[in-house]
Amino acid sequence: MTGTLHIVGVGPGDPELITLKAARLIGAAGVVAYFCRHDREGHARRIARAHIAGTARELRFAYPFTTERRVDDPSYAPDMASFYDRCGDDIAQAVAQGEAVVLLCEGDPFLYGSAMYVFDRVRGRLAVEVVPGVPSMAGCWAQAHAPMTHGDDVLCVLPATLPEDRLTEWLSRADAAVVMKLGRNMPKLRAALARSGRLDDALYVERGTQPDARVATLASVDGDVPYFSLALVPGRARVR
Amino acid sequence: MTGTLHIVGVGPGDPELITLKAARLIGAAGVVAYFCRHDREGHARRIARAHIAGTARELRFAYPFTTERRVDDPSYAPDMASFYDRCGDDIAQAVAQGEAVVLLCEGDPFLYGSAMYVFDRVRGRLAVEVVPGVPSMAGCWAQAHAPMTHGDDVLCVLPATLPEDRLTEWLSRADAAVVMKLGRNMPKLRAALARSGRLDDALYVERGTQPDARVATLASVDGDVPYFSLALVPGRARVR
Repeated sequence: MTGTLHIVGVGPGDPELITLKAARLIGAAGVVAYFCRHDREGHARRIARAHIAGTARELRFAYPFTTERRVDDPSYAPDMASFYDRCGDDIAQAVAQGEAVVLLCEGDPFLYGSAMYVFDRVRGRLAVEVVPGVPSMAGCWAQAHAPMTHGDDVLCVLPATLPEDRLTEWLSRADAAVVMKLGRNMPKLRAALARSGRLDDALYVERGTQPDARVATLASVDGDVPYFSLALVPGRARVR
Repeated sequence: MTGTLHIVGVGPGDPELITLKAARLIGAAGVVAYFCRHDREGHARRIARAHIAGTARELRFAYPFTTERRVDDPSYAPDMASFYDRCGDDIAQAVAQGEAVVLLCEGDPFLYGSAMYVFDRVRGRLAVEVVPGVPSMAGCWAQAHAPMTHGDDVLCVLPATLPEDRLTEWLSRADAAVVMKLGRNMPKLRAALARSGRLDDALYVERGTQPDARVATLASVDGDVPYFSLALVPGRARVR
C-alpha cells in the first residue's frame, strides 16, 4: 500500500484564494499536515480550514522556536534541521501506510516556504506532487493596486534580513522589488530605500487579501511590523 | 447603474489552478474580456472556459500584432498604446452599463500582464478589483520540483529580452533566477548562463502544469522554444 504526499500552496490569506485543485486535494486527504507556532492554529490551517475533512488526522508541526532565537545562534540551524527531519519522517510514515497526505503551505510552497525543507528530505523516497499557490506577494500587490513589472522590468525579491548595504545595492539596481520578512528590519529597510532613492515609491502592505489588510506608503510606517507584511517598489513602467 | 471591473488571474495553465474566487467571479460575470492572438482562442479564455456563463457577452481583445513586429519598431509602442486605449474604453463602457465585467489574465495580472496596461488606463474612472492568480513561474517550479528560495536567497525575475551583458550580470548576482520570455532569446540566454557559471544549474520548463508539460536541463535544449516556457535557476540552498 503506498500513498502520496501533496505539498499544497493555500495562497496569501483570503480562503477564497485557494485553487480548485488545492481544495479538492485537502478535502480528499486522510492526513493533513501543517506548520504552526506552538501556541497558534497556524496560518495555513486557518486558510484551509473549511476544506479539511472531519475524519482527517492532523499532523501539527509546531516550530521549536520562531523569533525568540536568532538565526545566527549556533544552535539555530541544527535544531531546525532536526525538526524538519522529524516532520519528514512523520510524513513518510503516513505515506507508507497508504495515506493521501497533504502538507499545507501559506502562499506558494517553493518561495521561502518551510515545506521546501521537508521536500528536500523526502524527495526520492516518496511520491510527491507540488501544487503551486498564489504567493503572498501577489496577494499584496493586488491589494495595493500596484502593477509591478511592465515590458523588460527586472523584479527582485529580497529578504529584509540582508545587511543594509546589500539591500541598498539591490534596491538601486532593481526595476521592481518586493521585500519580504520585514519584522524588526523596518528601520534598516527604510534606510536602504532612502539611500537607493526608492523610498518615495515604496508601499507597505500588511495582511494582504485578509479582511484587516492595510496599505500605506512605506515612508509613513513607523516601528516594528507584523510577520504578514511586505514592501513593494513597483517597476518603472517605461513602456506604457 | 454602475458595475465593477474584476481583473482576474486564471493561473499558469491547468484549469484546476484557478482560485475559488476567480471561478466565482467568472461564473457571475455578464461580460468576460480577454486578450488573444487574432487567430486563437486565447490562453486565458481556454483556462477559464468551464466557468464562463453561456449568457455572458465576450469582449475579445485580439492583439494587432505579436511576434511579427519587433519591440524596437517605432510603430510598436504607439500602436499598442492605441490598442490598450480601445480595450480600456470598451471595458469602461460595459461597466458604465452596470455590467459585472471580468478581464481574464494568464498567471497573475500584475506580473508582466497585458491587463496592467488596461488597469493603468481605467484606474480612477472605474471601480476595479484585482484578483491575484498563481503566476506561471510558480506553476513551472512546482512542475520541475525545484524549490527556489531558501533562507535569505534573493530571487531575480528577468526578461530574456535584456542584452546578453545585462543578463550575465544579473545571473551572476542572483541567488535564484527566473527568466521569462525565452522565445527567440535562447542562444543569448544560454551564453549568459554559461558566462555567469549558472548553465549547469539551469532548468527549462515548457507548458508548466499543462498535460504536455516538459522539464529538461537548459543545457540540453536547442533552438527556438514556445512562448509558454521559462528558465529556472534554483537558489543556492545554503541554509538547510
